[in-house]
Amino acid sequence: MTAKKILFIVLDGISDRPCPALRGGTPLSAARKPVLDKLAAEGICGVMDTIAPGIRPGSDTAHLALLGYDPYKYYTGRGPLECVGTGIDMKAGMIGFRCNYATLSPEGKVIDRRAGRIHDTEALSKAIQEGVDLSKFGVEFIFRSGAGHRAALALEGEGLSHCVSSNDPKKEGVAPLTVKVLRTGEKEDKTAAVCNEFVKQSTKILFDHPINQARVEQDLAPANIVLMRGAGEMGDFEPFQKKYELSGSVISAASLITGIGKAVGLPHVEVPGITGSQNSNISGKVAAAIRELETKDFVLMNIKGADESGHDGLADQKKAFIEKIDPLLEPLLGLQDTIIIITGDHSTPVCIKDHSADPVPVLIRGEGVRMDDIVRYDEFSCAKGGLGRIRGVDLLPIALDLVNKSHKFGA
Amino acid sequence: MTAKKILFIVLDGISDRPCPALRGGTPLSAARKPVLDKLAAEGICGVMDTIAPGIRPGSDTAHLALLGYDPYKYYTGRGPLECVGTGIDMKAGMIGFRCNYATLSPEGKVIDRRAGRIHDTEALSKAIQEGVDLSKFGVEFIFRSGAGHRAALALEGEGLSHCVSSNDPKKEGVAPLTVKVLRTGEKEDKTAAVCNEFVKQSTKILFDHPINQARVEQDLAPANIVLMRGAGEMGDFEPFQKKYELSGSVISAASLITGIGKAVGLPHVEVPGITGSQNSNISGKVAAAIRELETKDFVLMNIKGADESGHDGLADQKKAFIEKIDPLLEPLLGLQDTIIIITGDHSTPVCIKDHSADPVPVLIRGEGVRMDDIVRYDEFSCAKGGLGRIRGVDLLPIALDLVNKSHKFGA
Repeated sequence: MTAKKILFIVLDGISDRPCPALRGGTPLSAARKPVLDKLAAEGICGVMDTIAPGIRPGSDTAHLALLGYDPYKYYTGRGPLECVGTGIDMKAGMIGFRCNYATLSPEGKVIDRRAGRIHDTEALSKAIQEGVDLSKFGVEFIFRSGAGHRAALALEGEGLSHCVSSNDPKKEGVAPLTVKVLRTGEKEDKTAAVCNEFVKQSTKILFDHPINQARVEQDLAPANIVLMRGAGEMGDFEPFQKKYELSGSVISAASLITGIGKAVGLPHVEVPGITGSQNSNISGKVAAAIRELETKDFVLMNIKGADESGHDGLADQKKAFIEKIDPLLEPLLGLQDTIIIITGDHSTPVCIKDHSADPVPVLIRGEGVRMDDIVRYDEFSCAKGGLGRIRGVDLLPIALDLVNKSHKFGA
Repeated sequence: MTAKKILFIVLDGISDRPCPALRGGTPLSAARKPVLDKLAAEGICGVMDTIAPGIRPGSDTAHLALLGYDPYKYYTGRGPLECVGTGIDMKAGMIGFRCNYATLSPEGKVIDRRAGRIHDTEALSKAIQEGVDLSKFGVEFIFRSGAGHRAALALEGEGLSHCVSSNDPKKEGVAPLTVKVLRTGEKEDKTAAVCNEFVKQSTKILFDHPINQARVEQDLAPANIVLMRGAGEMGDFEPFQKKYELSGSVISAASLITGIGKAVGLPHVEVPGITGSQNSNISGKVAAAIRELETKDFVLMNIKGADESGHDGLADQKKAFIEKIDPLLEPLLGLQDTIIIITGDHSTPVCIKDHSADPVPVLIRGEGVRMDDIVRYDEFSCAKGGLGRIRGVDLLPIALDLVNKSHKFGA
């Protein structure tokens, strides 16, 4: 009678605005998607502001909200989650940055913000980790390579702040910026000085490094400066399992999402062939989710392809992706004992080519749900559903109530 | 054209989840209830999260929210309201506990958590009040008997905290617990010490008391220890009449509800034959409410029976209770000049046998209300209503606006 498990499927960027190319429909409303519609028909639907009405969510803040961690409390910048994604063990209070390896010309101008899309930067990062010394500030650091030209920097020490700017000029042909304070304060002064010292020392190390000397000789852009941005303070995340008394896993190809999972203590399940793109192994993901639910209470699965089409402004491609994945979701129809939630993290309208604040459709299907009369999973239909209009941070508490894991407030 | 009075009827635990025994309906949706449906048809409907989506309300926190007192601000534990219920004049900042008289074996184990369901404990409570001395802590206390084996303890003094645990082992055959701090702090240390000293001294008094010696001789469980729990700090409740410029009354058989009324300065109206159960004198309550509204601006009436059936898991009984009370509400149809609000404090699904966070249906009927097209008062119908999905603390402000007692914010 009462479900025991929760399967939380985030169709990344799924929702949209009316598209003239689809005669005023959205990719989701125009798509043929009998499985999603059946799940909607068997459940209760609504729309959701992942953060709040009119606030455009990032994927990071959105997923924090969906996991019940208020991003206004836990999120100060993307850096710390990028650090987690590269494998750095971030502790509450550490300051994290997203970094790029970039190319500085002999005249001191940033001429390639991605250093010729260099990959395999492990040796460079090791040289920085071993060569840079911030001990005069009483600060320790961890610097790690990420995918391709990406990297992450974490600072640990007394009296640091995330309220500092970036050295990234955000365009090419100009000098890198000096990291500045974003508000007056001793911590900010110290952190900016630490950052500028880090850039100075690491640039020296990179200029002299044999890998870069070889790249110059091969006419490749050397990775001779680190651009850092997205400063944030690592939040004091109460572990998911403790907070909700639920064991869980994350299934996603996106390192940002698996990083968020890791930050709250949710392990990542490896699935072969998942890409975070149109060609991902969705069947493998669905099978993995169903398998995980045999032993876990909660699975968060992110399916990314629709977001990509939204960013690229391709309405037909977005619709086609939805039609492609819909039959692959069919195994969900047989799931018993499980609250299935299907929603988005944000809209990615093809007319915007970026995230928007338009609310996302949400359906909840499973034992004990008060079914409404909505039979289609799309932006227009769900807006008439029995759930009404809710917020992202409310969704997990609603699911916990349905699986009888809520605690009464009061008596 | 504008109503002047507010009648606020809380059908305790009225709402539910779909019940297989009722072919997927709820007790409310399956019940024949022409009066409630007529009120819905003449008004505007919606659903309400009494606290917030996914948060399971207690009856106490729910009623605070419905009276417009944010429970996150005013509620730290049930103790203070229990104290009010026993007649203790609780001042803001006092620490209150719910207590039970219980039975301790000669070996020091709790062998009956209700002391043989003793009643008439006035003499024992008087002995405790006169015999226990907490003056070495600079603390005064008030100890009062409640109904049956129940009692309440209030502490008053400098440097006290509600963040202490209970001495109640919650099961029988084990020793009582020591009261401990729930967070580190001087106030917590002091309060825990006060509680343990209270238990020590009161246990001595109770062991020696002639009533208990007589009970032992008669083979009755002696009431020789006080178990205390639900520590809370009394909130600084702005009196209802001052806060809203409305005179008012409470009609309820439940001492918790009348206690909340008393805490905010709403007197309780005595009605003969009300029981808080299936057999209550509902007609008497309705008549009393209508009579009160001749002189008062606001009446809160709580009808408890459906909650009882929910806790007992009896769908048919819950439906039958709704069908039984519906015709008794008929006099409300003739009420003029009055905003009638009918809602629940929480859902009590028969499949859960406890409160759940599923939103409650709400109807508002009276002069000036924007009628919608909902003609049935139940969970599914109200979810489509013109009120949308609101929260408990919003309901009284909406009613105040309708009776023209709202003040403009701004100019």
